[in-house]
Amino acid sequence: MKASVISIGNELLSGLTIDTNAAFLSERLMSIGVPTVCGYTVGDDIEMIAEAIGSAANHSDVVLITGGLGPTDDDVTRNALAWFLGVELVLDDGLLREMAAFFKKRGYRMVDKNRVQAYLPKGAGALTNEVGTAPGIMAKYQGKTIVCMPGVPYEMKKMFDDSVLPIFDGAEKVVVSKKLRCFGAGESTVAENLGDLMERGRNPLINCTVDESVITLHIVATATSRKEAKSMIAEDESCIRGILGPIIYGSDNETLSTAVGKLLIEKKKTVAVAESCTGGLVAKMLTDTSGCSEYFTYGWVTYSNEAKASQLGVDSDLINQHGAVSECIAAKMAAGARKKAGSNVGIGITGIAGPTGSTEHKPLGLVYIGIDIDGKSVVRKYVFPHNREKVRLRAALTALDLLRLRLQD
Amino acid sequence: MKASVISIGNELLSGLTIDTNAAFLSERLMSIGVPTVCGYTVGDDIEMIAEAIGSAANHSDVVLITGGLGPTDDDVTRNALAWFLGVELVLDDGLLREMAAFFKKRGYRMVDKNRVQAYLPKGAGALTNEVGTAPGIMAKYQGKTIVCMPGVPYEMKKMFDDSVLPIFDGAEKVVVSKKLRCFGAGESTVAENLGDLMERGRNPLINCTVDESVITLHIVATATSRKEAKSMIAEDESCIRGILGPIIYGSDNETLSTAVGKLLIEKKKTVAVAESCTGGLVAKMLTDTSGCSEYFTYGWVTYSNEAKASQLGVDSDLINQHGAVSECIAAKMAAGARKKAGSNVGIGITGIAGPTGSTEHKPLGLVYIGIDIDGKSVVRKYVFPHNREKVRLRAALTALDLLRLRLQD
Repeated sequence: MKASVISIGNELLSGLTIDTNAAFLSERLMSIGVPTVCGYTVGDDIEMIAEAIGSAANHSDVVLITGGLGPTDDDVTRNALAWFLGVELVLDDGLLREMAAFFKKRGYRMVDKNRVQAYLPKGAGALTNEVGTAPGIMAKYQGKTIVCMPGVPYEMKKMFDDSVLPIFDGAEKVVVSKKLRCFGAGESTVAENLGDLMERGRNPLINCTVDESVITLHIVATATSRKEAKSMIAEDESCIRGILGPIIYGSDNETLSTAVGKLLIEKKKTVAVAESCTGGLVAKMLTDTSGCSEYFTYGWVTYSNEAKASQLGVDSDLINQHGAVSECIAAKMAAGARKKAGSNVGIGITGIAGPTGSTEHKPLGLVYIGIDIDGKSVVRKYVFPHNREKVRLRAALTALDLLRLRLQD
Repeated sequence: MKASVISIGNELLSGLTIDTNAAFLSERLMSIGVPTVCGYTVGDDIEMIAEAIGSAANHSDVVLITGGLGPTDDDVTRNALAWFLGVELVLDDGLLREMAAFFKKRGYRMVDKNRVQAYLPKGAGALTNEVGTAPGIMAKYQGKTIVCMPGVPYEMKKMFDDSVLPIFDGAEKVVVSKKLRCFGAGESTVAENLGDLMERGRNPLINCTVDESVITLHIVATATSRKEAKSMIAEDESCIRGILGPIIYGSDNETLSTAVGKLLIEKKKTVAVAESCTGGLVAKMLTDTSGCSEYFTYGWVTYSNEAKASQLGVDSDLINQHGAVSECIAAKMAAGARKKAGSNVGIGITGIAGPTGSTEHKPLGLVYIGIDIDGKSVVRKYVFPHNREKVRLRAALTALDLLRLRLQD
């Protein structure tokens, strides 16, 4: 079974929006052993969309289309599909009622423009959209399956996982994949250490992707049964863990903050955070997870020196002596947060996120991270590259990683 | 003149790499008035590449291809182009010498594999690559221009700007675009209100994209001069602002937090934030911008009731009486933050981000946002849909938007 992907929208062709839907779909398809053989990007144009559907159907068994299902005049995907299939668009009363209920439940007024979203090409079925107004469409054409989904990534992903993935059941080969998440080493170092394991054409195939300093190793095993594929993965995983050791912080969709949360619960510890340059980002990450009140106590964003003194009890004389961005202040912030919150662990972060604020001795990207566990404090110094956003993100992730490594010890 | 873009590489079809080259090229082309009419993503496969070139050439005057020019066996773009053109690949001695010099200059050994990069389809010309080993290729086919560039974004961008842009010289039309950013209304409401302004084929063309509740209107004007295009945009902008009013918070790359920051500076006000369910996200957004210390004072993440009492002075009896998620506590948090920080403005947010914590009378997504300006407090109640992440993000953005609207009054 092969698939193809069509991304629709003038905003994609004008370069205003980068298409991430196609990559999401291709990755999901790869994980179930269905290769994507081609992709098309077309504007909101009936003829171009129909031509792309024809070409895609020619090369693949399943055509996945995203975008152009909205309520505005430029959304013509349903018209293009109807035209390609040679059928009319017909109003689906059930869909219209579902849409009206969706609006009512949320307390919004359903405007006339939305009615168009209840039309389907004759003979086609609707795919439920639980999180938006545009239903998806599934149609058959010469034994091929054509699926239209909304362009909004959140809606598309949910619809794909809920309603589209099941149609791929029964492929001959089984592909199982597992992700190992790493932090604290570069991509080339990981690749160098893994050596032959990452060879092309190997089975399991081991790919490496990088996103905001988190390296993900994808172990993709192809086998005749799920059990066999899983055992191939288990063997590789054990081998990789032996080589990379503690830089692997978790698997599949685990984040550094969920990994830290699990460790805090396991060790029965609570954490408080005092942030300067990261401005609340560490607290935000730690509270991303439901149930975080079990380990997260207090957070302070103490941007000014005065806030560091009044909220965390950091001695103003020390700030004057060493500067707010210093090893000693990071330690005092961590200790102050821990004590004020009555927690076991305190995190203190102070740095220069830029683009202004650097001096001869304190460059842009300089960040001190203090971790105080039951009064035992460790401070690390970093100089993170790139811009304000990257420095803040790297600092926050590194703080979580430092805490993880200390809790694992 | 019209263009099309072909992105080549198995890694794009497996979803491991997101294609950013196509969006870069389309945006550059739009800025010189050349519309991109379609895009193709194909793997490293000679037949598929040739078919895409044929289809692209059919729809456009210039076909821009990226990827597949490397030295390894899976790089087959030059072979596919030669096959499409019906010509042989021939070794270009001059190119080979240039490549040898490139390697020598950098102190690298040129391996045999690299020789293939000095081959060109007969009759085609080479484009210099100053920052990599793969030269580009430019060929003519039935009056159309076909350009192959490397897939490495850095090399491709330089080659495009240096060697490919000049071929578009003398394009008759100029295209200028401007973005208007909106918050607080749905896409269909915006479209309904704008009516005919959003008609397809209109000039300026007005497109609408949505990202995390922020609606962006793209006004794209095509004219014979930059001045004319800008004046067309100004006219439409004024018309749109008249219709949509305060839901437009800014233009181009402005975010809600930069818009709020500007207003705070303008009104000479400072802000402190007390967050429960958003866990530091509002503070993080307010400190995204360099120079935020001018208006941002303190942030508290008071997840527990005890933290609300000890840090913000919220009366524990009130919490017991009304519950932590209530209008009255949001007001007290906002007032407490304002007073403790000695700021003009206090924001207080309390809610149920889920997935746990809801009750019969307090559903998931229930959020109270209090804004206290100089002692005058306003609290609004919301029920945001979807999941924990979306509820938190919507709550944080809505808090910034509420503050914006109050400051604008």
